[in-house]
Amino acid sequence: MLKTDERLDHLLAQSLRIIQSPSVFSFSLDAVLLANFCRIPYSKGKIMDLCSGNGVIPLLLSSKTKVTIDALEIQPRLADMAQRSVEYNELSQRIHIYEGDLREATQQFDNESYSYVTVNPPYFSTPPAGEKNKNEHHTIARHEVMCTLEDVVRTASSLTKQNGKVGMVHRPERLIEIIDLMRRYRLEPKRIQWVHPTPDKAANTILVEAIKDGKPGVIFEPPIFVHEADGYTKQIKEWLYGTD
Amino acid sequence: MLKTDERLDHLLAQSLRIIQSPSVFSFSLDAVLLANFCRIPYSKGKIMDLCSGNGVIPLLLSSKTKVTIDALEIQPRLADMAQRSVEYNELSQRIHIYEGDLREATQQFDNESYSYVTVNPPYFSTPPAGEKNKNEHHTIARHEVMCTLEDVVRTASSLTKQNGKVGMVHRPERLIEIIDLMRRYRLEPKRIQWVHPTPDKAANTILVEAIKDGKPGVIFEPPIFVHEADGYTKQIKEWLYGTD
Repeated sequence: MLKTDERLDHLLAQSLRIIQSPSVFSFSLDAVLLANFCRIPYSKGKIMDLCSGNGVIPLLLSSKTKVTIDALEIQPRLADMAQRSVEYNELSQRIHIYEGDLREATQQFDNESYSYVTVNPPYFSTPPAGEKNKNEHHTIARHEVMCTLEDVVRTASSLTKQNGKVGMVHRPERLIEIIDLMRRYRLEPKRIQWVHPTPDKAANTILVEAIKDGKPGVIFEPPIFVHEADGYTKQIKEWLYGTD
Repeated sequence: MLKTDERLDHLLAQSLRIIQSPSVFSFSLDAVLLANFCRIPYSKGKIMDLCSGNGVIPLLLSSKTKVTIDALEIQPRLADMAQRSVEYNELSQRIHIYEGDLREATQQFDNESYSYVTVNPPYFSTPPAGEKNKNEHHTIARHEVMCTLEDVVRTASSLTKQNGKVGMVHRPERLIEIIDLMRRYRLEPKRIQWVHPTPDKAANTILVEAIKDGKPGVIFEPPIFVHEADGYTKQIKEWLYGTD
């Protein structure tokens, strides 16, 4: 089942396995943070994960919900890895992996039909060609080559039904742009949470949850700290390794 | 020197005294947070404090800078308290208290002339008359009766010189509005810091520093926690009581 450069890693907290490849795509802590941040429905509605990569978000969410999770990924190699992970974990009934372009997602999927859309998009505006990551798989995952932040927000909003939610992880320096774009596309930020590498360092990750056509008014959740003196904090350990 | 309902409180960390009155105005922790957050110039330029109340911000800042601090307050009673505190502390050479309306400040003061403008504005949009605080002094300090958030941001921007800074304390639920307004008036948010009552509670205060005509890109500073199990945190104690 595994291709030459792939390995079958554990998602310990969920008792699942996931196919990864250091040379193509490995999920980051940001996916774990997003999956734990999102207040997804448990039994009603359906979920869409955009920019799904190797399907880590749908796999993580599957332990928190019974609803169907669709996932869209533009890179065939990654969509294939995601599909095989879903099959390995016997989740094909609940998680559907689609290969496709986010910019055309409104033709591929029903608009205003999802209760929750999650997305861990590329973080970096497209840099000059010379500066881009040499590895094309990494470049597409990390830089706005195939979709801009506006494409992501517009698509997420289009797919989300009224009063549905969108959950996104991104870099703090893009927050103002994210808020601007979300409001332009009818998404009202309602919960924001900062993630700091340690308690005394500036935040390097941000989690945002918006409601489509929601009323203004945002809550800033208690901050998350990733590391303390002797490694991961208790919270992160629990999310990575489970409570046992 | 004190009027009947007034008392002469200590600003311990600064070895200063301040005239307060529970029935008229007492400064809050937010003023202390703002004074410590702002990266004011030490020897060059001048500072303006808007919505100055009893002048707590200029008094707190005076220990961090040698530059002149102007302060504007619309309530005559509060401006008078501020003036007497400045005189008591023998700071009349460096702190100038003005009574006046922020909405007309651009006629009263030189535009684009301040290196730093601080403001601890009223936090609440004007509520229906019945819900307003019965005490008019408190109402004006806490509700947008005499000036709206837009008035505050527009005036702060007008008084600030290019590449000068504006520092504001407010409530997190107004953040998105603050960012919108700041950007509309050429103020680019550059540093944002959240204040949580305890580490496990949502933020209830926000500190924002913007640069006039600054480049986009914001840093989210490490969060501030006000209380821990046995009272104020070390950081807050230091700001309130000093390091000795």
